[in-house]
Amino acid sequence: MKRTAFFISDSTGITAEVMGESLLSHFPGIEFDKQVLPYVDSEAKANEAVATINLAAERDGNRPIIFETLISKNLRRIITSANGFSFDVINTFLKPLEQELGAHSTSDVGRPRVASKDTNYIRRIEAINFALDNDDGARLNRYPQADIILTGVSRSGKTPTSLYLALQFGIYPANYPITEEDMEVFDLPKPLREYRGKLFGLTISAERLTAIRKERRANSRYASVDQCRREVAEVERLFEQYDIPYIDTTDVSIEEISTRILATTGIERHFR
Amino acid sequence: MKRTAFFISDSTGITAEVMGESLLSHFPGIEFDKQVLPYVDSEAKANEAVATINLAAERDGNRPIIFETLISKNLRRIITSANGFSFDVINTFLKPLEQELGAHSTSDVGRPRVASKDTNYIRRIEAINFALDNDDGARLNRYPQADIILTGVSRSGKTPTSLYLALQFGIYPANYPITEEDMEVFDLPKPLREYRGKLFGLTISAERLTAIRKERRANSRYASVDQCRREVAEVERLFEQYDIPYIDTTDVSIEEISTRILATTGIERHFR
Repeated sequence: MKRTAFFISDSTGITAEVMGESLLSHFPGIEFDKQVLPYVDSEAKANEAVATINLAAERDGNRPIIFETLISKNLRRIITSANGFSFDVINTFLKPLEQELGAHSTSDVGRPRVASKDTNYIRRIEAINFALDNDDGARLNRYPQADIILTGVSRSGKTPTSLYLALQFGIYPANYPITEEDMEVFDLPKPLREYRGKLFGLTISAERLTAIRKERRANSRYASVDQCRREVAEVERLFEQYDIPYIDTTDVSIEEISTRILATTGIERHFR
Repeated sequence: MKRTAFFISDSTGITAEVMGESLLSHFPGIEFDKQVLPYVDSEAKANEAVATINLAAERDGNRPIIFETLISKNLRRIITSANGFSFDVINTFLKPLEQELGAHSTSDVGRPRVASKDTNYIRRIEAINFALDNDDGARLNRYPQADIILTGVSRSGKTPTSLYLALQFGIYPANYPITEEDMEVFDLPKPLREYRGKLFGLTISAERLTAIRKERRANSRYASVDQCRREVAEVERLFEQYDIPYIDTTDVSIEEISTRILATTGIERHFR
């Protein structure tokens, strides 16, 4: 069975999409064709959306599911006239929330907070710059400013996790790869020793690591299961020996790695 | 008036938070103290959360607002026993969705899709690598593989936007800064000329640019309003001359810049 799902918004569509995706994930047996229609902020665009929805309904032989966060009642009226099944994601909760807060909601929002009013904008940019400057052990002299130093074998997820931490939470992350040379010493790499309190380890199954490394260098010793197995075992031994908290990234999304790191370490987000 | 808001989940907490943030943004007159409590997946953790909520209620003299996406009925019962006002974000919509789909929802989800099952994981990593390798005009030989080439003056938002496009949508972005030297030629930089169809411009107000540049190099000519004004005017002239679509990033969040670029260009997301 196949159904089409639309995420419709007068703004970025992120709320409609996150909510819709969450709900649809409860139905793993159904295949959904998903479409985001952002910036639906005029009657013309709403009518265009309706045509798209109706076309999908005809093609599927089933009306599409619609998750919408439109502010304008007029635009909502147009969208709900389509041959679809609509969820009014925001308004469903807005009335009880107004009652609880004893306040009226303003209707001119729905747009993401603008950057200039957002004192977090510059912090976000600076955090990204910090992550880039301190990626892959490139610089060690800014470790005193780092909120966290991720470490692990090559391709264990350090760079994407660093970038996510910077972009989403304004955290200053550094990351340092543990290479074969480091392992020959059978000890924690020297540059990391004085920052033990900031270290967080990433590990990964040897099989998964092999698959990821093969994307970059197929048929290399670097990507062989034996090599991966050896590196992973050694790194985990180091994490244990030095009491470095670590997480197995094998079956875990970047979002989950990042939020688990915050939950484990108690590092404060600079914004939400 | 101040109220505390909790975003509670047995998983990352991203859905509870995105929904809650959206709803609370409709009440700009109220100051909210926001707390994410992710990975509440045991009775012990749920009881801990209840204690935190009750403490906030006492301190505020007002019961906190709770947005929760818990799967377990048992854990929800514990959370709703707290002195708070709860929104059951997922279940509210789940029953009507089950009816419409004619299917039962599975209750073992709520966890983000695991990475190994996610064929998108490697694409995501590769997209981030592509963005990093092709940041700031570092390499030109991979432009044929780029999905988009962002261009604009230094500090107009190219790097964060590139990373967001890669991380969230699996798009391969390059970015190329237009420097003063380029401007002396009064023409589009040579490396960009054969990729005109992939170009997307970012511009920004001179005042905002000055503020951002001052964070990096205060009191420099680089950060002066005059210099910024001149660069911005010249770059906008180039965009117009070559019919390059562009967006003013001045008051716009990185999420909005990125989603607007997709809406304008029609570039397909590699995943959602």
